[in-house]
Amino acid sequence: METKILNVDLGERSYPIHIGEDVTASIGSLLADRGIKPGTSLLIVTDRNVAALHLDRIVGLLGQAGYKVGTYIAEPGEATKSLAVLQDIIGTALDTGLDRNSVFIALGGGVIGDLCGFAAASYMRGVRFVQVPTTILAHDSSVGGKVAVNHPKAKNVIGAFYQPEIVIYDTKLLLTLPPRDVRSGLAEVVKHGLIWDEDFTSWCNENAGRLLSLDLEALGEALYFGCKVKAQVVSEDEKENGLRAILNLGHTLGHALEAVAGYGELTHGEAISIGMVGAARLAGKMGYPGDIHTVTKALMEKFQLPVVIDAAYSTDDIMSAMQHDKKFRDGKMVYIVPTAIGKVKIDSSVSADMVRAVVDELKGGE
Amino acid sequence: METKILNVDLGERSYPIHIGEDVTASIGSLLADRGIKPGTSLLIVTDRNVAALHLDRIVGLLGQAGYKVGTYIAEPGEATKSLAVLQDIIGTALDTGLDRNSVFIALGGGVIGDLCGFAAASYMRGVRFVQVPTTILAHDSSVGGKVAVNHPKAKNVIGAFYQPEIVIYDTKLLLTLPPRDVRSGLAEVVKHGLIWDEDFTSWCNENAGRLLSLDLEALGEALYFGCKVKAQVVSEDEKENGLRAILNLGHTLGHALEAVAGYGELTHGEAISIGMVGAARLAGKMGYPGDIHTVTKALMEKFQLPVVIDAAYSTDDIMSAMQHDKKFRDGKMVYIVPTAIGKVKIDSSVSADMVRAVVDELKGGE
Repeated sequence: METKILNVDLGERSYPIHIGEDVTASIGSLLADRGIKPGTSLLIVTDRNVAALHLDRIVGLLGQAGYKVGTYIAEPGEATKSLAVLQDIIGTALDTGLDRNSVFIALGGGVIGDLCGFAAASYMRGVRFVQVPTTILAHDSSVGGKVAVNHPKAKNVIGAFYQPEIVIYDTKLLLTLPPRDVRSGLAEVVKHGLIWDEDFTSWCNENAGRLLSLDLEALGEALYFGCKVKAQVVSEDEKENGLRAILNLGHTLGHALEAVAGYGELTHGEAISIGMVGAARLAGKMGYPGDIHTVTKALMEKFQLPVVIDAAYSTDDIMSAMQHDKKFRDGKMVYIVPTAIGKVKIDSSVSADMVRAVVDELKGGE
Repeated sequence: METKILNVDLGERSYPIHIGEDVTASIGSLLADRGIKPGTSLLIVTDRNVAALHLDRIVGLLGQAGYKVGTYIAEPGEATKSLAVLQDIIGTALDTGLDRNSVFIALGGGVIGDLCGFAAASYMRGVRFVQVPTTILAHDSSVGGKVAVNHPKAKNVIGAFYQPEIVIYDTKLLLTLPPRDVRSGLAEVVKHGLIWDEDFTSWCNENAGRLLSLDLEALGEALYFGCKVKAQVVSEDEKENGLRAILNLGHTLGHALEAVAGYGELTHGEAISIGMVGAARLAGKMGYPGDIHTVTKALMEKFQLPVVIDAAYSTDDIMSAMQHDKKFRDGKMVYIVPTAIGKVKIDSSVSADMVRAVVDELKGGE
């Protein structure tokens, strides 16, 4: 597969995403092309799992290209997205001698991207950063500049809007992904179809098998399309004042489920799979035509993703977790509702009672 | 004294500073004029000392004006500028139901401004904030949008550039300041003269007595001028790429002294007083004409500020703390050197040996 280059258009904060097999082989020259000169100090932030698979190779490539390379290896998992780990990363950056001209490199999935991105945004009030995603899910977090860590009481509430210099997306790095992470990542890919394009949703439905078995050509297509949908939305609404909210399909309920389950119990993709099924069920209740719920549920099942809520979770806890969600404004409940396959609407008048009913139905396995 | 209004010109991020006796009496209408509508949720972040003196009155005024008001009361002192306290503030914001449309209000000195500003910058990736300074020192931190917390290994290394909606500077709130904080704050006022204006430096020298005894008219003049110098510099260089570095006169050594002494042992003003004397001594070594060192030292002494380094501090520790300072870039040492009274130069070729010699001389009480 040839390398595809997607430009995320954000004025002076624009940046390219390079997607393709083995693009990391050129990481040195890609950095140099973006004005990050050999000799610059870099800090690679990664996690233990990714480090075991890819770190030595990336460190070697960057060293050969003339960069000074330090590393920070975090524990894998959502719990790593904390202020405590952020403080630890900043300590390593200081010990490694990083200055305002240095660059952070996020080598990993969405957790590492969010964490490293916020570290870069706040270190000395902002240094440059580069993303090298190693998961499918990261196609989502690698576009849009939303970086953050979690608070014990809510997900992603401490963060910034901060854009990378470049995203280097090597599909070959995805071959070592555990099956659960493959499915979880594909949930976000499918989401981009559901909010934007009925044809792409059909393509996902037809290519579920190829995607689940990590066919690199299908993966490259899917990542390119997923990034492209997101880039279009983000370009029109960088600071999430309006349109960008459509990307949160499935996330209001999804984030609440992650919080109630305990971060790391449900993967993000699993949580939003249930969230998207919930949103589709809500659409039915609100009277939107077409059987959006049945189609959405079947699609998630095809990708071997969960579609019901564990009955052990308390409905009150789930509802309470949603109160902390950023998508509430002045007490009103904003919900992203699918109005057809490939189309969503931002509805700011959804009643909590209706959402509660959906949660209870999903707990009943309906 | 009539109210003075200074506009900090930063394009779409411009904001006004209202300076005057009793300006907080109009806090409700000032907020409304800036588009913060009654009914909006506010979180006032302050410290225990300031809370005892001013919080009830400010809460009352905002309540009368129709705002929903929550409060967070931190411990006084530099140690409060930590990620742990930031996490605690964010927790209170979540519990109080603050959303993306809410506003943080920093009621306090520089520590509270920096801390609350960074909380506002990062809460839900950025909400609006307002500064109500209660110290003289805060005239410095209230202009320029540099917000941050400390890392155990270095000061102000975790932060953002983030501008307030408005600064409401009530000189009457300064009447309760302890004498040590008055002196410390005046150190920054004098600094603004030293970097920019020989006449204002003379005015400070002549009016030291009035300023130390908190004559409100003299204070209003001094704060207005201090803010104005800083606003001019910041307007030309919001992200500290060049000119803005001149504001760091005395800070490279000053920050190192604060770190080595243990945060809170030396006030910021005391530390930069010694730092400015050190920079003036460096100027002498570098051959700049005029007796900058003698004039600077006499001025600091007139304001009852320290001019020597405690001999108990290790020179090695001080030098090492400077290595962590943000003002190093690619290994070179950048120092702000006074070239005359009212003039400074950013010099990027100062040798560490020369700085070490100055530190040793200051420890010897020379």
